[in-house]
Amino acid sequence: MSAQVIDGRACARALKESVAAAIEQLREGGARTGLATVMVGNGYSSAAYERRLRRLASDLDVAYFPCHLPATVSQDDLVSAVSGLNAAPDVSGILVLRPLPGHISEAAVFQSIDPVKDIEAVHPENAGRLALGVPRYVPSTAASAFHLLDKWLDSVGEDRTAFYHRSLVVVVGRSSNVGKPAVSLACDRQAAVESVDEWASRTGSLGRHTRRADVLIVAAGRPGLIGAEHVSDRAVVIDVGINPRPGPGGRNRMVGDVDYEAVAARVRAITPVPGGVGPVTDVWLLRNTAAAARALSARERNGATLLLSSLELP
Amino acid sequence: MSAQVIDGRACARALKESVAAAIEQLREGGARTGLATVMVGNGYSSAAYERRLRRLASDLDVAYFPCHLPATVSQDDLVSAVSGLNAAPDVSGILVLRPLPGHISEAAVFQSIDPVKDIEAVHPENAGRLALGVPRYVPSTAASAFHLLDKWLDSVGEDRTAFYHRSLVVVVGRSSNVGKPAVSLACDRQAAVESVDEWASRTGSLGRHTRRADVLIVAAGRPGLIGAEHVSDRAVVIDVGINPRPGPGGRNRMVGDVDYEAVAARVRAITPVPGGVGPVTDVWLLRNTAAAARALSARERNGATLLLSSLELP
Repeated sequence: MSAQVIDGRACARALKESVAAAIEQLREGGARTGLATVMVGNGYSSAAYERRLRRLASDLDVAYFPCHLPATVSQDDLVSAVSGLNAAPDVSGILVLRPLPGHISEAAVFQSIDPVKDIEAVHPENAGRLALGVPRYVPSTAASAFHLLDKWLDSVGEDRTAFYHRSLVVVVGRSSNVGKPAVSLACDRQAAVESVDEWASRTGSLGRHTRRADVLIVAAGRPGLIGAEHVSDRAVVIDVGINPRPGPGGRNRMVGDVDYEAVAARVRAITPVPGGVGPVTDVWLLRNTAAAARALSARERNGATLLLSSLELP
Repeated sequence: MSAQVIDGRACARALKESVAAAIEQLREGGARTGLATVMVGNGYSSAAYERRLRRLASDLDVAYFPCHLPATVSQDDLVSAVSGLNAAPDVSGILVLRPLPGHISEAAVFQSIDPVKDIEAVHPENAGRLALGVPRYVPSTAASAFHLLDKWLDSVGEDRTAFYHRSLVVVVGRSSNVGKPAVSLACDRQAAVESVDEWASRTGSLGRHTRRADVLIVAAGRPGLIGAEHVSDRAVVIDVGINPRPGPGGRNRMVGDVDYEAVAARVRAITPVPGGVGPVTDVWLLRNTAAAARALSARERNGATLLLSSLELP
């Protein structure tokens, strides 16, 4: 094993400290940071995510409002629940956990979120701002992938700008919440970017694309998709996959989309699963919740809404 | 010269016929198709664009409302002008011509357009819908590039789906109105997509990216950027550049971003400038104006707004 292991837990701890300081400062200024999650039905992954957020909110002394709805909830009732959270002054950020049941239009629910409370940027207006390079909020997983990259570059003494300018970032997977935002963030850094869909693995051409990557971001939701034959020795690999697999004692364990042992033996640096992108993502969501509290407080004061660039959060 | 020349004028004529039929059908149903353009100051390119649109609207019997404002107009007055067009029942589509003067916030003006009348999809909500793969309107230049590609594939008997699935589309240039939407459209077709910024030409690495392209879309606004050394013989080249150059007799002539003679001698197919993407773009804008008339009419009838997928336009 030769790759440097990028330590997501250490990165998350540092980020958490600065978010805690920002939340404390907001509290002194009278702004209320509060997180609401909306979960429909009972998914294994969303329940686990909710537990982690509850703990993190408690650590950061942030009010947490979980909203559980039955899998049979109607779309109108779900939208009404979101409207209630839009109106609640103690809630600064709203996260609707995926997946939603098939009878619900994700788009209709996302569009019903107050854009200023939309901390995962799922409302079309926020997705558009991100695509246009002027984000209000950056979705937490893609943001965390690049936060880890940026911090890793700092740690090895590479100039971020020079690195991105000469690099090709290859993103595998095109989900609205991870793959597409990651492409936008790589464009913002003026890297060359390639976006590859899962079909490339079916046609056997995936490696032709991924082997060229200086940075390889994998967000396909398919365990073991990336093997040693898919990477070059200069690659920095960010594994976004979190796939539950039955482990010893009947408990699930999490594996990524990358065959970790094989790939780590070849590449320059790699994030593990667990302990890579995941821990940073959780903190980033709270960071956005704090950013939303600041923006809402500004809206109350003078009717204007702040954009991300005017916030002083980490 | 070995490349097939993709004839934009012929493609535009065919599209114009089907748009004319759609507009006629809308008129019979009581929907009013009307185009408004907003021009601030006097740019050479925007004045030429406006003239072409005026002629095309007249051909298609579409009401045309040009709005000229002085370069010194305040942002508030410009937004007020847009609000007036939002409210005008004879205007179904609004196009704000770029560039705007430096003292005006493009984002603020774009956000003031009624999203249903925003036929170039510059409002963040529409940009977001496009990025998420559920567009209300596709911006005319990127749409035309892919319309030409699709029609060319039909003409040579290639299956569109199979072609895009096995192809790498390389997009040079990352403007919000062309480069970024082109990346989204290539993703929608499940092609592999690479987005390259202009910096790549400064670092000498442009060819490393563009030579891999099965489809090369060039939208950098730099005449002669792409030479024979930047392409492979299997490439289909779509030249989006429209750069005015002094020609004989003191009149400007238009040249693309591609060194046409040199590149046409090598590649599989290519669009010329003029006579390539440009003519299709003009018609596509009228197509979107008609789509907006249909959506506005539906909104009036039942309060709902239609998305592109529910329209039967070409």
